[in-house]
Amino acid sequence: MSPSNTRQIRLTWTGEGLAFRGGPDGGVQIGVDSDGETGQTPMQLLLMSLSSCMAIDVLMILEKSRVPVEQFAIEAVGVRADGVPGRYVSITLGYELTGPSEADVAKIDRAIALSRDKYCSVLHTLNPDIECAFTVERR
Amino acid sequence: MSPSNTRQIRLTWTGEGLAFRGGPDGGVQIGVDSDGETGQTPMQLLLMSLSSCMAIDVLMILEKSRVPVEQFAIEAVGVRADGVPGRYVSITLGYELTGPSEADVAKIDRAIALSRDKYCSVLHTLNPDIECAFTVERR
Repeated sequence: MSPSNTRQIRLTWTGEGLAFRGGPDGGVQIGVDSDGETGQTPMQLLLMSLSSCMAIDVLMILEKSRVPVEQFAIEAVGVRADGVPGRYVSITLGYELTGPSEADVAKIDRAIALSRDKYCSVLHTLNPDIECAFTVERR
Repeated sequence: MSPSNTRQIRLTWTGEGLAFRGGPDGGVQIGVDSDGETGQTPMQLLLMSLSSCMAIDVLMILEKSRVPVEQFAIEAVGVRADGVPGRYVSITLGYELTGPSEADVAKIDRAIALSRDKYCSVLHTLNPDIECAFTVERR
């Protein structure tokens, strides 16, 4: 048994090109691929990780705030540094929500700010010098 | 068309619990799930992202160095901070290789160091205060 504050995955090379499969012991296994053919690329997975972490925070906070959410999506765009390493220098997350009213917009902004400033485990694992921007669109 | 130095994904809430699906436009779509049931969790995906990015660097460098690799895996363990946010404070990547000889060990160490210090786009997107450790096992 691993302590509750540890997370573990195992990644195995498929032997073909630069493609891999992996995941947690006994958990969901996915492909990862430098070409994005048999799985997402490492840099796409990083955006998936960040977006989903903030999405979980925001949905939980909105539920506690009694803001109705029917549909929810995040469009994430990361801009990489020119040259090597091609790390992300800026990331924009565009939140799209169906359900909240105009009167709920301040609560949505507050939920995003709480995730950004206090709760999001993935965001706080990233370099704090990355420029992060957030937009909200009610649909 | 987006510039070549940008990466994009779209994440959509499934509407059930805190489960999502998403990926790049026209690319591989995966699940993400706060419970790890229908997809990996955000913090597991972050370890997948880091491990695969370093794996790609290391395999490319070893190929250029003419080090034979038959099997390759990484076991990644991340330790989260107690409390909120539960960010990673340390990450250990255990490299497992079949194929290289004892004489190749220095080349493996050098490949890992080059990825760590120069090439890995994901590692250089993370907070530099995270303690990262690397082990190598020939099998």
